[in-house]
Amino acid sequence: MQRYQILTHNEIEQIHETSLRILEEVGIVFSYAPAREILARGGAKVDGQRVYFPKDMVEKELKKAPSSFILHARNPEKNVLINTQKTAYVGPYGSPYIMDMDNGRRIATLDNFITICKLEHQMDSIDIMSHIPCEPNDVDVKGRSAEMFYQTLKHSDKPLMASVLNYETAKDNIEMAAIAFGGVDFIKEKPVVTGIPCSLTPLSYDDKMAGAIIAYAEYRQPQLVNSLCIAGATAPATIAGTVAVQNAEVLAGIVLAQLVNEGTPVIYSASASNAEMRNGSLAIGTPEDAVFSLINGQLAKFYSLPCRISGALSDSKCADAQAAYESMLTLSMAQMAGGNFILHSAGIIDTYNTISLEKMMFDDEIIGMIRRIDQGAVVNEDTLAFDVIKEVGPQGQFLTHEHTFIHFRNEFYHPVLSDRSNATQWERDGALTAEKRANARWKKLLEEYVEPSLDKDIDAALKKYMKKIKVR
Amino acid sequence: MQRYQILTHNEIEQIHETSLRILEEVGIVFSYAPAREILARGGAKVDGQRVYFPKDMVEKELKKAPSSFILHARNPEKNVLINTQKTAYVGPYGSPYIMDMDNGRRIATLDNFITICKLEHQMDSIDIMSHIPCEPNDVDVKGRSAEMFYQTLKHSDKPLMASVLNYETAKDNIEMAAIAFGGVDFIKEKPVVTGIPCSLTPLSYDDKMAGAIIAYAEYRQPQLVNSLCIAGATAPATIAGTVAVQNAEVLAGIVLAQLVNEGTPVIYSASASNAEMRNGSLAIGTPEDAVFSLINGQLAKFYSLPCRISGALSDSKCADAQAAYESMLTLSMAQMAGGNFILHSAGIIDTYNTISLEKMMFDDEIIGMIRRIDQGAVVNEDTLAFDVIKEVGPQGQFLTHEHTFIHFRNEFYHPVLSDRSNATQWERDGALTAEKRANARWKKLLEEYVEPSLDKDIDAALKKYMKKIKVR
Repeated sequence: MQRYQILTHNEIEQIHETSLRILEEVGIVFSYAPAREILARGGAKVDGQRVYFPKDMVEKELKKAPSSFILHARNPEKNVLINTQKTAYVGPYGSPYIMDMDNGRRIATLDNFITICKLEHQMDSIDIMSHIPCEPNDVDVKGRSAEMFYQTLKHSDKPLMASVLNYETAKDNIEMAAIAFGGVDFIKEKPVVTGIPCSLTPLSYDDKMAGAIIAYAEYRQPQLVNSLCIAGATAPATIAGTVAVQNAEVLAGIVLAQLVNEGTPVIYSASASNAEMRNGSLAIGTPEDAVFSLINGQLAKFYSLPCRISGALSDSKCADAQAAYESMLTLSMAQMAGGNFILHSAGIIDTYNTISLEKMMFDDEIIGMIRRIDQGAVVNEDTLAFDVIKEVGPQGQFLTHEHTFIHFRNEFYHPVLSDRSNATQWERDGALTAEKRANARWKKLLEEYVEPSLDKDIDAALKKYMKKIKVR
Repeated sequence: MQRYQILTHNEIEQIHETSLRILEEVGIVFSYAPAREILARGGAKVDGQRVYFPKDMVEKELKKAPSSFILHARNPEKNVLINTQKTAYVGPYGSPYIMDMDNGRRIATLDNFITICKLEHQMDSIDIMSHIPCEPNDVDVKGRSAEMFYQTLKHSDKPLMASVLNYETAKDNIEMAAIAFGGVDFIKEKPVVTGIPCSLTPLSYDDKMAGAIIAYAEYRQPQLVNSLCIAGATAPATIAGTVAVQNAEVLAGIVLAQLVNEGTPVIYSASASNAEMRNGSLAIGTPEDAVFSLINGQLAKFYSLPCRISGALSDSKCADAQAAYESMLTLSMAQMAGGNFILHSAGIIDTYNTISLEKMMFDDEIIGMIRRIDQGAVVNEDTLAFDVIKEVGPQGQFLTHEHTFIHFRNEFYHPVLSDRSNATQWERDGALTAEKRANARWKKLLEEYVEPSLDKDIDAALKKYMKKIKVR
């Protein structure tokens, strides 16, 4: 299916050329000395912390990244192919707060973290578990990344993400993955975790994130090289200027990863949005965010790289209509853009700060709807159904025709949350809003949750490793 | 901007060919004798009420319809160009019920009708007034169409729609338009109203709608030749089969209009959706509806005709999250499809049966967001802003740069309903949901409403004409 092309090929090339000029003439600050050393060896000019990337070097390294790889799951049936065509939906990431209709908004805990893991596991719409569905604020910071990784692995057999806190912590998570999946050599061949190191926008990388890029590349685990530019704050107040900055940051990270380990898988990841100009703060459920998504999809395809785009974004403070329309906008545009790895696919409200359990259920439905659209329409003799149409004829009905029975199950999406009864029936059923139905639904999914089994020896080995981290 | 192509050109051709076969071999029932006579004179074979359209005849007549025309408004600044590229948003159409947070759902009255007219007039998002924003059930049926036309004309100076109840009533409305706009000859040159005659699906037209097609064509007023197929009920349970039926119906209506008056403006109008299979009834806020929209957009462009696509559709029974995500889906896909005349752009819930005043405000915001996306991104030296980026440099900020002040107003959409404050501020402001803010907003728009002036003589002449209808 042809994706929506918001820019011409020539406009995409202009952005690319501007990013190359930024990399070559303005440069990127890397505070992390090991990163500067690797980049210098690869041909970059280094002046203090500032690294200048020659055009040829960037174009050469970019070509080394693969366009396709498989992210392996504990349950091989849940392996996910990441390429430039397919779309994988990934859980929410990084919110300090959780919210639901019963208990309102509060600081998230490990208990909440596990609840969201279970929901992600239960939701057919979610292909990949995120690393931080919410921040487990009651867990000591020292062992938190390991704890999150362990709990996610324990509560789901879908593919998963891991930490990018810094070089050491990323390594620890990946070593745990190696324990769970059969050793470091095995996972270097068959990647099992992915992480999302992020630039310090504009035009820099801090020690932690540059370290994470290096760790993932060393282990050949796929990484989303990410930038979150804020147009009007950390980047120009123009779409084109912001994309130029963001693209320069992402390309710099990809070059670093390829210099560490040629051919290591990367996902082009850009999540620019715009500032709410009254206070300069980020806004994410915006049409500009959608425009960025459409352009990022085109840019990633220009580089023949899989593309991360943000999903169910919203600035609403609760699971209301604003949350719903912003979420549908950002998720549908992610699909229109040809996004291959849709992060934050469920639950985000409050500009990334809160996960709403009810909104997770909205988004589950929204993804189902969007996937149906992406399925398109099969056009052939059977589906065109000329003979059926001729047989039924003018003013006839198709409801009881065999052709209808054969096709409707696959042709129509069957909603899990939306109400399609008539008004009288709906009132008789208690006049429940979507929010109330969503509240009932996440509780039902939790009730039905069954923990996938984890090998006892692996479990013991993981716990032993975690203990080591805590006393280190 | 390149639109989303859900089907290939070859698949669109297959649908076209199947529709031509349906027209030629299955035929369309026209119960209205004058329509059959016109079609027979144009080359159709008539057998009883069944009319068979030779392929050459259809292709010949189709070419006569213009690709572009202007719909004139009382206020010329509000004239709307309808072509195959631009998008006009049009009010809701035909609901028997109205609903708001204060008074719940109830049978609509003329008073409600006028309220919605005022809101449509106030909303920047709405370009064209619909004919029946809700059904004024307290007005006697005999003069109802005239009353609706008069009230719409009186309460707004935007372009407007008119009745398609039958030949006589359509004529009455158009004659009233002639009174308001300077005579029949004037409006034949400069069209001022548009109507939406609809097939009786599958594959027939009743007396009333065939009569309306003839009336609009005689006066050269643009008409939306429409079909509302229900996949699985009035058409096959496949997307392709339903589109083939629907397309045949629309083409038959267009051929009739062109035979009445060569070159009369038509808008390709198809609003198929699918049946909710538990009861065979229509569902509209569905992903299948969105797929139909995308295909209809391609088909209309295949015929070089302006395209009507449905907008803010929902099956929800109230202004909740379901209403919001379904509305965003259908409105955004209408835009992605390249829709040129988006009917039902605001307020629809309850599968066309109810207009929600709060949802009108959601849709006002949604259209603003979608229009921003459609505006795309300007890529040039100024917007790419290399010099600004170089000046600010790594880890700098753009918030106070002159370039930001110059651009942010035009580059960013400024929301009218969505909340982008932080959680603390939102709670301090009363923790208002989008529904509550929408309730306050439509009241504010009504308070600020100022009736546009209508020439006294025209007003008197219109009233006189309406009196004549009532005693006829």
